[in-house]
Amino acid sequence: MKKISLLGASGSIGIQTLDIVRMHPDLFSLVAVSVGKNVEKAVEIVEEFHPKLLSVQHREDAESLRRIISRKTKIVYGEEGLLEVACHPDTTVLVNAILGSIGLSPTLSAIEQGKTIAIANKETLVTAGHLVTDAAKRHGSALIPVDSEHSALFQCLNGEKQDQMERLILTASGGSFRDKKRDELVGVSVHDALNHPNWSMGAKITIDSATMMNKGLEVIEAHWLFGTPYDQIDVLLHKESIIHSMVEYIDGSVMAHLGTPDMRIPIQYALSYPDRLEIRNAKRLNLWEVGKLHFEKVDFNRFRALKLAYEAGRIGGSLPAVLNAANETAVAAFLEGKIDFLTIEELVEQAMENHTSIQHASLDDILEIDSETRLRVQSLIK
Amino acid sequence: MKKISLLGASGSIGIQTLDIVRMHPDLFSLVAVSVGKNVEKAVEIVEEFHPKLLSVQHREDAESLRRIISRKTKIVYGEEGLLEVACHPDTTVLVNAILGSIGLSPTLSAIEQGKTIAIANKETLVTAGHLVTDAAKRHGSALIPVDSEHSALFQCLNGEKQDQMERLILTASGGSFRDKKRDELVGVSVHDALNHPNWSMGAKITIDSATMMNKGLEVIEAHWLFGTPYDQIDVLLHKESIIHSMVEYIDGSVMAHLGTPDMRIPIQYALSYPDRLEIRNAKRLNLWEVGKLHFEKVDFNRFRALKLAYEAGRIGGSLPAVLNAANETAVAAFLEGKIDFLTIEELVEQAMENHTSIQHASLDDILEIDSETRLRVQSLIK
Repeated sequence: MKKISLLGASGSIGIQTLDIVRMHPDLFSLVAVSVGKNVEKAVEIVEEFHPKLLSVQHREDAESLRRIISRKTKIVYGEEGLLEVACHPDTTVLVNAILGSIGLSPTLSAIEQGKTIAIANKETLVTAGHLVTDAAKRHGSALIPVDSEHSALFQCLNGEKQDQMERLILTASGGSFRDKKRDELVGVSVHDALNHPNWSMGAKITIDSATMMNKGLEVIEAHWLFGTPYDQIDVLLHKESIIHSMVEYIDGSVMAHLGTPDMRIPIQYALSYPDRLEIRNAKRLNLWEVGKLHFEKVDFNRFRALKLAYEAGRIGGSLPAVLNAANETAVAAFLEGKIDFLTIEELVEQAMENHTSIQHASLDDILEIDSETRLRVQSLIK
Repeated sequence: MKKISLLGASGSIGIQTLDIVRMHPDLFSLVAVSVGKNVEKAVEIVEEFHPKLLSVQHREDAESLRRIISRKTKIVYGEEGLLEVACHPDTTVLVNAILGSIGLSPTLSAIEQGKTIAIANKETLVTAGHLVTDAAKRHGSALIPVDSEHSALFQCLNGEKQDQMERLILTASGGSFRDKKRDELVGVSVHDALNHPNWSMGAKITIDSATMMNKGLEVIEAHWLFGTPYDQIDVLLHKESIIHSMVEYIDGSVMAHLGTPDMRIPIQYALSYPDRLEIRNAKRLNLWEVGKLHFEKVDFNRFRALKLAYEAGRIGGSLPAVLNAANETAVAAFLEGKIDFLTIEELVEQAMENHTSIQHASLDDILEIDSETRLRVQSLIK
């Protein structure tokens, strides 16, 4: 029985994680959970899964929940609440599906306790990859990816030797504007940007997919997860998103992971690893139904955000945290209609240019740089 | 150091096996080798690799070779010679790249001595899969595929659990007539049949590729190699032959092996397993150069030989030996211009209809049925 702490239960990854736990009550149990502001969801989860611990964002919500929820579930709140959920003594696996840099401290604490971490929180590795992987090594904590691309790479590396790996190949759909040239991106609407061809995801990640910043963040994550130099990480345009990613080996063999766009596959794999479990009502992949798969070389001038991410990754230190914070702030502004689509990349580039990277940045450094960057980018937006 | 016995050194697989040994003198050494009738090749091999044992087909060749070859290499001949090569006491790995059922006895003997078998000889598993796998189990002998499709499956199963496998998916190029309808196959020429779009192979296998009997034989091989029921083995048309085969798991994940059409990759993997080694001058796979991959459902009425192979496999016993022997005889007759292309399948079907399968056939049964079938099919050809 794997005992699970889930941070971010009311988001898309969180909800699907609960689906997996629900399907396999003999294998997984939910020990502790956080839900942010969604009090209704919190009640539902407690009634169905009876976790020992529930954390919400606000104190008031915690207090009102105390009146209606069984005493068997302890209720906590705020950042300390998240920490308590991540580090619950019964927990063996932490699923970190919370959004933003708030997931960083709880993850590091869980790692220090040797728990297995199923990582769905991008910031964890993008902004603090050096701290996280270093701590995981010291405390013998396993890091298992939840992202479909990283799960694909993880599966392609299964049973193989690290030093016989030649290249990681992350596939990219190209997002909602993949067929547009760069000069056609001037003045595109929020509505069009949100129309992703393959996956139904949150607004932030859909915009990141259109700029390909999402792929850039994934490149940085892959670097940390698999200890792979940036020169050995490639991105390949593959508009059908059927091949989720690939690993090339020194003998010229390329192992690939394919599947339908069902996030339950990588989420479940992170929980069931090294085993695989059936997924009820899963649509099987039949390539003859798909007919054709397309591949194209990535143009780094067309997708400038990807180039910026490689740069931030290569320089390293605190620069990826700046990339990430600037991007989050700029994307939020775009979604609010305050800036143009192409301004997202410009703001990120400016923020990177104005920052002198601190190597071996501490968690406090990173959190401070994160806040500062957000404020600075904010100030550039009217 | 892996010590290698190589049966069939002058054929295409044999020559490439020698290439691999040549590239890694620190890892592989050639202990014993057979070459059939190619005396010139035999001299070359002995001079370069200094094997302890050499076998040729004919006694006269053995005798004349004795006069020119260093005494350090013992020379033997005939079927007993093959047996001696396969079972050389120093040998740890037998590469069986000999053509036809003559490879069967030496392989079984090597298995009984617990040697690892790199199987490139189709007959071994198609006609005697039950004997070979049973003996391998009893003597703890590993069977490693050399065929690109089976090597792909083997690699996709790496690090995975057998009972979590859902389906093997063998890809098929469709051969030289893949774009023709069945009624367009009437009267096609030998020359056109030999024009394979992706691979450069021997004449027999190129015709088998055009009828898809080759894929049928591979289905039977996969059944034995991986212990997979026929209902869980699928064939998918994929004309580029870039995806060499795939394995679907119970969670919906599909692992695939991709590569350029370079037979050195699977041959080397069979020797280096579980490690991978670099291959000099290997062309790397870049999917953006390929651009598109195509997939189509197989039509069993169009490719009747494939249907016959599934039938032979499902009924089992001695029937696959009949399928194989009838096919070999018919293909030889087609290559000699004695019968039409579509008559190949008809002769195979007739031979199967006229045979009552013997379950648990012994090696002698199989060899006898093989000869009988050849004679019977021969008698139907003017």
